[in-house]
Amino acid sequence: MNNPAISAPRLLTELTHLAQIGQGPTGGIHRVAGSKADLAARDWLSKTMKVAGLTGHRDEIGNVFGRTPDSEGPRLLLGSHADTVPGAGHLDGAYGVVAAIEVLRTLVEAGHPAADHIEIVAFWDEEGVAADSNGGLGGSTALCDSPHIRDISAYLELHVEQGPRMEAAGLDLSAVTGIVGVERYEVVMKGQENHAGAAPFHLRADAGRAATRAAAALMPLCQEIDREGLIANVGSCSFSPGAANVVPGHASLQVEIRGISDDLLEATRSTMRQQFERIAEEENCSCEIAQVSAKPVASFDPEIVRTVEQTCLKSSDKVTRMASYAGHDASVMSSHVPTGMIFVPSTSGISHNVLEHTPDHQLVLGAQALLDAAVTLAEERARQPRLAVAA
Amino acid sequence: MNNPAISAPRLLTELTHLAQIGQGPTGGIHRVAGSKADLAARDWLSKTMKVAGLTGHRDEIGNVFGRTPDSEGPRLLLGSHADTVPGAGHLDGAYGVVAAIEVLRTLVEAGHPAADHIEIVAFWDEEGVAADSNGGLGGSTALCDSPHIRDISAYLELHVEQGPRMEAAGLDLSAVTGIVGVERYEVVMKGQENHAGAAPFHLRADAGRAATRAAAALMPLCQEIDREGLIANVGSCSFSPGAANVVPGHASLQVEIRGISDDLLEATRSTMRQQFERIAEEENCSCEIAQVSAKPVASFDPEIVRTVEQTCLKSSDKVTRMASYAGHDASVMSSHVPTGMIFVPSTSGISHNVLEHTPDHQLVLGAQALLDAAVTLAEERARQPRLAVAA
Repeated sequence: MNNPAISAPRLLTELTHLAQIGQGPTGGIHRVAGSKADLAARDWLSKTMKVAGLTGHRDEIGNVFGRTPDSEGPRLLLGSHADTVPGAGHLDGAYGVVAAIEVLRTLVEAGHPAADHIEIVAFWDEEGVAADSNGGLGGSTALCDSPHIRDISAYLELHVEQGPRMEAAGLDLSAVTGIVGVERYEVVMKGQENHAGAAPFHLRADAGRAATRAAAALMPLCQEIDREGLIANVGSCSFSPGAANVVPGHASLQVEIRGISDDLLEATRSTMRQQFERIAEEENCSCEIAQVSAKPVASFDPEIVRTVEQTCLKSSDKVTRMASYAGHDASVMSSHVPTGMIFVPSTSGISHNVLEHTPDHQLVLGAQALLDAAVTLAEERARQPRLAVAA
Repeated sequence: MNNPAISAPRLLTELTHLAQIGQGPTGGIHRVAGSKADLAARDWLSKTMKVAGLTGHRDEIGNVFGRTPDSEGPRLLLGSHADTVPGAGHLDGAYGVVAAIEVLRTLVEAGHPAADHIEIVAFWDEEGVAADSNGGLGGSTALCDSPHIRDISAYLELHVEQGPRMEAAGLDLSAVTGIVGVERYEVVMKGQENHAGAAPFHLRADAGRAATRAAAALMPLCQEIDREGLIANVGSCSFSPGAANVVPGHASLQVEIRGISDDLLEATRSTMRQQFERIAEEENCSCEIAQVSAKPVASFDPEIVRTVEQTCLKSSDKVTRMASYAGHDASVMSSHVPTGMIFVPSTSGISHNVLEHTPDHQLVLGAQALLDAAVTLAEERARQPRLAVAA
């Protein structure tokens, strides 16, 4: 039997409705967690769930949940976050929330038995930009710390890719395999400040040269380790004292590394240290590399990834598996319940920006894939006890 | 006949006396042009010249001159500048001024006929650090614009190297061949700001990567053109927006190139443009290179360089020819009269700093070489009409 089809016009209309809440004069959406617009959006979501025949409730932190009146656990949780960065586009978290409502509404309308094993959520403060924020992912973290989590059998999140990979490869849907680990480093090269004319190249300890050589070495270093699973960035570079006629005595880089596995991150860390220290030595400088922060890799449940991939293939033959290079609530959820994600492409890879866009037909494909995957997972999960996942 | 020997104790004592004028509590000397200490130093220099039996006069801008009462033109001018940067060492311009007094005093005491064909000078505002300064080299520029210049047959300046080359090569004296041209550029790479996780390497236009690759390429680029006559520096590097998780959309470098000939500077300029543009293209960026300033090469008079080298060899066998990588009054003088310079080493290449130092025996060697060269040049120049030099 075919699963019921979501309503494309309703999905797109509801997305437009939600986008109007907190929308500024130039189109950018301002719904920072806890702002008036964010609270108004949560009221609108509760109302929309009610109209869809669902029972809503809001927890202490501000997560908005919805389920059928006859719902019984354990339940598959579908959703994303409702807050935005300032000046955001209309998709990001909103797409996953609106699609989750559309999926459950469609199942309810069709009298599909999976409906009673699905719960939907609009998470609180994923972005972490409010002054009083704890750095983001606040709603999913609170859920995982509450008794409510015991009633959740699995989590599935639909999201825009926020990167250009899928568009570049001509893909419609991705089964997301996990979320990259992110490590940040401050690299400091120390040499000897000197007169740029007086000091010949071979008698310098040019910290600027050491730093720029290191920065230039980062990409090939990563690509040699793994061309697919690693990415890095030098986000800032500064020299001291910073005058045209002074050889820099001090230079620093902000380096970020993202990798799809702990092994890749570990290999990059040690190769980077080795190469940067060699470069420093060649330039008569010293090199200090300090880790500023580290978010571990989140690996999604292999069974869910497989189910997601198979159900995506029902909607399109342009489907792949990929890791997410950005953080999501699914990252927090994955250390508590079996978790998966579905991506649709982002036009030009743009996100956190009013230009954020995904073609309508792909937004619809994504929501249908969410429904198809949810039906399979809800039925599977309802038949088996909740799986334990190591925290 | 041997030339008379300068008095080493008197040279070193007078250097110490002059150093006490404007000396701060931690030893650094503060005689910015026009400051009370600078004016006091000029009074002391006039008095010292008088004690040495010389007739002094100060011109409108503040240059202090001295010559014998029976002096007759054309005259060989010996000297340097008396002003300092803030917190300076005791040598820089002061050494050349005190040594010039010592040379003329020794010749006067010995009744040497060259004495009447030599004039000495303490130039005004070579450093150009005062708020109302015209950028330095003010005294020599004023002299060259005045009728007084018609009476000068040649100029010879003794100076500390202000770099580490001579010390590293174990040299006592150098005949300076000219002063490097100095060109400054602002290099701007423009790419596309992007999310550091979302954008894979091959889909980036990473301005930071383009800029650091360009910076790292500068030294090999110069060395391929000329290992001796060229030097360059990247004095500052900055990325915008400058966050760890943002691929820089904009990056800029401050680049300085110094070369001993216009041909070398021209070759560097065009190779740099070519290589930086190629790097920018490889990184999907655009590259703009704007010249911020350009000081032309100053080539000294080949005959004077030869005479200086030969007379230096009377004092030491550790003599070389080299270009000056820093600017001097001799640069201004060289476009008006045949000009030369003598260098003594700078310990660790340090200058414009309280740690500036040259071993006493080399200070003495330098002053004696100045006397020997001056005697030869004064006698030669007195016998011939003044040479025209292209401005």
